[in-house]
This record gives sequence, C-alpha cells and structure tokens, in this order.
Amino acid sequence: MSAAKLIGVGVGPGDPELLTLKAMRALGVADVIAHFAKAGNPSHSRAIAAHHLRAGVAELPLYYPVTTELPACSAGYRDAIRDFYDGAAAEIAAQLEAGRVVAVICEGDPLFYGSYMHLHTRLAARFPTEIVAGVTGMSGCWSAAGMPMAQGDDVFTVLPATLPETDLMRRLAEADAAVVMKVGRHLAKLRRALQASGRLSRAIYVERGTTAAEKMLPLSAKLDDEASYFAVVLVPGWKQRPGAEQ
Amino acid sequence: MSAAKLIGVGVGPGDPELLTLKAMRALGVADVIAHFAKAGNPSHSRAIAAHHLRAGVAELPLYYPVTTELPACSAGYRDAIRDFYDGAAAEIAAQLEAGRVVAVICEGDPLFYGSYMHLHTRLAARFPTEIVAGVTGMSGCWSAAGMPMAQGDDVFTVLPATLPETDLMRRLAEADAAVVMKVGRHLAKLRRALQASGRLSRAIYVERGTTAAEKMLPLSAKLDDEASYFAVVLVPGWKQRPGAEQ
Repeated sequence: MSAAKLIGVGVGPGDPELLTLKAMRALGVADVIAHFAKAGNPSHSRAIAAHHLRAGVAELPLYYPVTTELPACSAGYRDAIRDFYDGAAAEIAAQLEAGRVVAVICEGDPLFYGSYMHLHTRLAARFPTEIVAGVTGMSGCWSAAGMPMAQGDDVFTVLPATLPETDLMRRLAEADAAVVMKVGRHLAKLRRALQASGRLSRAIYVERGTTAAEKMLPLSAKLDDEASYFAVVLVPGWKQRPGAEQ
Repeated sequence: MSAAKLIGVGVGPGDPELLTLKAMRALGVADVIAHFAKAGNPSHSRAIAAHHLRAGVAELPLYYPVTTELPACSAGYRDAIRDFYDGAAAEIAAQLEAGRVVAVICEGDPLFYGSYMHLHTRLAARFPTEIVAGVTGMSGCWSAAGMPMAQGDDVFTVLPATLPETDLMRRLAEADAAVVMKVGRHLAKLRRALQASGRLSRAIYVERGTTAAEKMLPLSAKLDDEASYFAVVLVPGWKQRPGAEQ
C-alpha cells in the first residue's frame, strides 16, 4: 500500500511541454488524478496533462456548481461554492483514508490563484501534502509575447480587472509593471484606467498564452472590448531598458 | 547547419526536477549553453541544469564584473554593467552569426527579474528568439512552504526590499499578498515596515526554496536580522481562507 498523500500538481499555462519533470513523476505515482472543470466542459488542466496520464489511471473530476443565477457577492453564491469545496475535499479525503496518493492537477501554479488551494486548506492539517510548483499562466503569456516584464527594483503587481475603475487607475499608476487578470467583461473599464494612468501604450492583450488558441496584440490595436475571461493584459515594466518607450 | 536562434531557458527555482520538458528539449538541441555567474563562483543556473546538459556541449560562461568598489547608484557602476552586457551580447551574437543555437539558462523565469533580459533586448531585433517560461523562484518558495499565496480578487505585489521604509510600509499595507525580494542587508528595515503595516505575523522568511540549502521559518521566529541576498519574505494573502488569521 502506498503512503496516502495529497499532491497539488502545477501543470503550467497550457503548453503540455511546460510540465515539469516533477509534475511528470507525480502523475506517474498517483493512484487518483483529480481535476476541476465547469459542469459540461472539459477540464483545462486535464487537457494540458492528457498525454502524460497513465492509461486507465483512476480519475476524479470535480465539477464546479452552476451558479449563473446567483450574484457572486450573494450569500447564496458563497454557500454554494463553500459546499462544493467541502464536498470535493470529502471525496478526496475518502481516497486518502483508503491509503491512496491523490494528485490534483492545476493550471499554472497550485498556490497562486488556484482552486486547489480550497482543497489544501481543508485537508493539509489531516493528511501529508506536497506541492509541485508550476509555471504560472502569466509567465506563459509574457514568454509567448517575448516581453521582458520586470527588472531590478521594479515593483510588480497582479490586479483583478474586477476592481473599481479608480482603484485600477491608482494601482496601475503606482506599479512599474503589472498583470491584469479576469479581464472578461471589464475590458472597457480597464482600457480607461490604463489610459488615465499613462499605461495604455505599453499594454498587451493576451488570450491563453502558450496554447494553440493563443491570441495576442497591443491593446491599443484591439478595436473592440470583447475579451475572454482567460485573457490577461500585460503592462511591462523596466523603464530603463534599451529601446523602451519613456 | 541548424538555424541560428537565441533561446532564453527558464530552469526554475533550484530543484532540478522543476525543469520543464520544453527546457529539457532546448538543452538537447542547443549548440552552446550560456550562463551567468559571479566571477570565481559556480553558476546557479548551471548547477540546476547540470544533470541535463549533453556531455561535451559547448558552454559560454558570462562572468559579472566585480563592482564591489562602486556604489550601485554611481555612473561608474552603471557603465561597468552596461559594458558587461554589451560584451556578453556580442559574444552570443558571434555564435548566432555562425549559425548556432544558443540557450541562455536562467534561474526562475527568463523575463521576470532575470539577467537574460539584458541579452534579449540587445539581440531580439537581430536574431530569432524563443522564450521557455520557467517556474519562478517565488513559486518555489511558497510551494516549499506549502503556503497558499493569493486567491480570488487579491492584489498581489512583488517588492524589492531596497525601497525606502515608508514606501515598503505603504505598499505592504495596500497589497493583499506580497513577496519581498533582495532581502539581504535590508531585513531590519523590512521587519519594521511589516510591523507597521500589520503584516509581520503573516510573514515567512525563505532562503533558496526547493534547493538542498532551503531554510524557512516565520519571520517573527527569526531572532536575528542576518539574511541572504537570495532570501525572500512571503506575505500570504487570501484573508478569507479557512483558518487564516484575520
């Protein structure tokens, strides 16, 4: 019997070659592979790791509840999400109690804005855990763009586009380099905040960097405000770099 | 003859297993492996990648100039560093002009606070380039600590400990989660800024996460202010997480 363990396995930003050797080894020893997905949709993390899964390995899909009818700030939404993570953690705990090694595969890095964290906080006190760090989605995006992001004494900030416009503007103005996530339906607002903070000319729009569906262009060249939930906007720093706009 | 190309290859935070499959492939095809090191010291990135280098592959070590006698803000220092990168870029350009594939191996991620960026900006307009994203040093540190860093709508910030104390304090207070780099001789000041911003109880000190030399402890349990230049301080966010201190 293997020693039960929960492993949070980062599988990187999308390109299956950006898995680490350590992630490969974890996939090789795990008795059960768990992955999050929207109900009715394929799991992104599973798609990234698909070629590296052992034939016939047990899988435990964890389907997010459908909550589109609930406002994200409502108690109903919070309760549905909490109940979902409680249930997912209980399913994994049952596997761990049976002595199994469970690998939860995660897009990007497990402990950086990832759903795995909800399982980790519920289970780490009761079971041995291990984290396999992964290449983050944002690293994948700026690497695909070939864009130096931060250097020397730069202050680098990650912001959700969900922030109010004035907060976005102020935080963009105060950071040397920034990545804005969750762009989705907030692109028009984000564009105004970038303009007001003097950052629009540096901003690069990237969708699903390192994947076959990759799309990128200077934000100033993007003529509409339609954006994917998975889009990010990069604001490169390093003002003193040779050739940088001042 | 292979098609000349410059590849910036992230080799991750320290654990040789945190190389990606794509990094392995780049090391396999490169004609020349370049790496930065302090004069008289082994290269960290070479040590990480050592087991994956082809026997007898050509190597191009790039030794930083010794500038300890020059203040970092002086024109003399800036000139010495600029001349060094100019010279390093010229050495690599000569290899590329000879039709070779040159892989510059980089700790962490090539475009995130890395020396490779100085070569990229000098060469990317003249030669084909490719970036292989890597696991950042900070991901290695929080993964080694098993510490969820940022979630949901958290604002996450990377700060250099070289900032003035009042700036550190204000920026720490405004971020939900933070990583402070270049701790070195700034730990006493950083500790005061963390205390003043109410973040000291959450702060974790980590040296060389994921390597054999890894050291980590809550900063509040660290009794001296001696710190490595490679130390980081993690300030985890996600205030609403189950079990988090409020």
